[in-house]
Amino acid sequence: MTDTDELAAWIRLMDTDGVGPQTARELLGRFGLPSEIFGAGFSALQKCVPEKIAYALCAPVSEELQARIDSTLTWAAQPGNRVVTLADHDYPKSLLTIADPPPVLYAKGNISLLTRQAIAIVGSRNATKQGLENAERFAQALSTAGLTVISGMALGIDASAHQGALLHVTSARDNGSTVAVTGTGLDLVYPARHRDLAHKIAAAGCLLSEYPLGTPAIASNFPRRNRIISGLSLGVLVVEAAAQSGSLITARSALEQGREVFAIPGSIHSPLSKGCHLLIRQGAKLVESAQDILEELRWHSDSSPVKTTAPAAQGDPLCDALLAAAGYDPVSVDQLAERSHLSAAEVQAGLLTLELDGKIELLPGGQYRRLGKI
Amino acid sequence: MTDTDELAAWIRLMDTDGVGPQTARELLGRFGLPSEIFGAGFSALQKCVPEKIAYALCAPVSEELQARIDSTLTWAAQPGNRVVTLADHDYPKSLLTIADPPPVLYAKGNISLLTRQAIAIVGSRNATKQGLENAERFAQALSTAGLTVISGMALGIDASAHQGALLHVTSARDNGSTVAVTGTGLDLVYPARHRDLAHKIAAAGCLLSEYPLGTPAIASNFPRRNRIISGLSLGVLVVEAAAQSGSLITARSALEQGREVFAIPGSIHSPLSKGCHLLIRQGAKLVESAQDILEELRWHSDSSPVKTTAPAAQGDPLCDALLAAAGYDPVSVDQLAERSHLSAAEVQAGLLTLELDGKIELLPGGQYRRLGKI
Repeated sequence: MTDTDELAAWIRLMDTDGVGPQTARELLGRFGLPSEIFGAGFSALQKCVPEKIAYALCAPVSEELQARIDSTLTWAAQPGNRVVTLADHDYPKSLLTIADPPPVLYAKGNISLLTRQAIAIVGSRNATKQGLENAERFAQALSTAGLTVISGMALGIDASAHQGALLHVTSARDNGSTVAVTGTGLDLVYPARHRDLAHKIAAAGCLLSEYPLGTPAIASNFPRRNRIISGLSLGVLVVEAAAQSGSLITARSALEQGREVFAIPGSIHSPLSKGCHLLIRQGAKLVESAQDILEELRWHSDSSPVKTTAPAAQGDPLCDALLAAAGYDPVSVDQLAERSHLSAAEVQAGLLTLELDGKIELLPGGQYRRLGKI
Repeated sequence: MTDTDELAAWIRLMDTDGVGPQTARELLGRFGLPSEIFGAGFSALQKCVPEKIAYALCAPVSEELQARIDSTLTWAAQPGNRVVTLADHDYPKSLLTIADPPPVLYAKGNISLLTRQAIAIVGSRNATKQGLENAERFAQALSTAGLTVISGMALGIDASAHQGALLHVTSARDNGSTVAVTGTGLDLVYPARHRDLAHKIAAAGCLLSEYPLGTPAIASNFPRRNRIISGLSLGVLVVEAAAQSGSLITARSALEQGREVFAIPGSIHSPLSKGCHLLIRQGAKLVESAQDILEELRWHSDSSPVKTTAPAAQGDPLCDALLAAAGYDPVSVDQLAERSHLSAAEVQAGLLTLELDGKIELLPGGQYRRLGKI
């Protein structure tokens, strides 16, 4: 039996009706490799799995399934693509420690990243600009320090984390780069607007999925995918999350897997800090900088030290007065006018300048918030 | 010996060179009341305290000291003023549990507040506007719930806490009002610009100091004063504090006294949140609302009962329908959709809520199971 035949058997196994990761692992534990499962015969299989699944495993390969197998093998033969199985030396060791490791992983890009020390960065799809910037800065600093940044390629925080990790990835070989664990087959990009990002990650990092090629975006696959994000990581950083957010599932999954959970605090008036505050109250580590995470992980890198200090805002007295009056919490134009003793028109003019300079952001609901630099 | 004579002996004792709170408590423990200390004689005193202090205790009362005693007795005879000693029934019980209770307290205002359940609210003198507003809002809510708000009458957070606690103090008798523990004699107001505030507190709350009348603002007295602020309280809330802030001394003092410490988080880019974040990392409770504090203290007031149930979990028809459809056996998303006649998206949304509420769990293999309550 060739490697290709064995790979075909893995794909066939995971494609069999009723066989999920758990059943697959039970069968593999009993019979060895997939080819041996398919050669075992009905009566032997029936002792291990329900009759219905035993029948399905003994059924001849349909034309449709054969087509799926063939197209997957063709995909896997292309440069940069890999199908990594539990039997593979390249299978990430970190996933072997979780309760439900996926038997098969589809990878596109630099597969060696899967065996490097990593940190997950996740958060809201509807993040604030400050949240997006925090995600990017933390990811950049952690990647520069040599950690691989894992995320889910979702809109918002996820995308910023990937982008931040990629910022300097070409300039130094020690950088950690980034891995996107997707909830669809790797031949699809979800969300579609992340096509460019997916190409960048495939080129300089790695795309990863447990779902067969062609698997569309199915809502229930995304929470399950989160166990891989946390499983690949030493810890999970939640940047911004509402009180009921999928990021909290990733955090809980991290706890179950014995991983660290880090959360960035924020204003008590910001709905997108509620989830982070909940996590901190439940024991997550409050972090203010990438350095906090590196220290908590006792991580030492030879590369450039992480800068955590903010450059001082400079210039225009009107803008300076507004920034001072704004603080770092959400604030209305009226509050700003009252605090700064400026006219509403002056406040509006100053806010426009500050927004264009990326020093303040307009929040949903018309309030403004000052943006800090890490 | 009249009460006035005894009070004069207390004042004389605390005015004696070399006698601080600790020596005073040792002498009181050995001889009883101050009049008995002064009647004990040099050789008896010498067995208890250093010779120099024994001499000082036996020295005749100087004219200057007599003038101070007389003016203090005059002050204490004015309406609203009290000198409360360790021998007094009105001495706050909470201070008897701290390591270094002041033997004499000077009070101006409603002394009954000193024996009520209290919360301290402290923070930076250079607070942000948002911080000041938070202090006022928390103080108002906690005072309305019946807790007395203790603070130090400093600029910034302290002043806002007192003001917030006083906002509704005249409208309901159950309100907690406020106590200002000052670092000077009560015949002085420090800082001077808080003259109006001091008058308001004396009228509707209470001013308190361990320092004799006439004691000016001496820097070293303020950190010592903090042990009384925390000592009078069930817990200390730090609203805003820089990384090196006197508020952290109050928080440490609270921990040493077995009091709770609460801190309000903020932007990681705000220098005035650094102290709060430090406290949270060291174990202080992160709080987003006054309600969080009341729940942590298991505080129930007749005016506003503490709600402890999560509002999200109740009454949501979607979640109720899903729970009913789920039963207590593992069930797939498809089955749930079929049983509940909801769309897959609705099922997913509901499952996320239910999972976060701890009402349903995600099983390995992607099925869900309803969790029962014991």
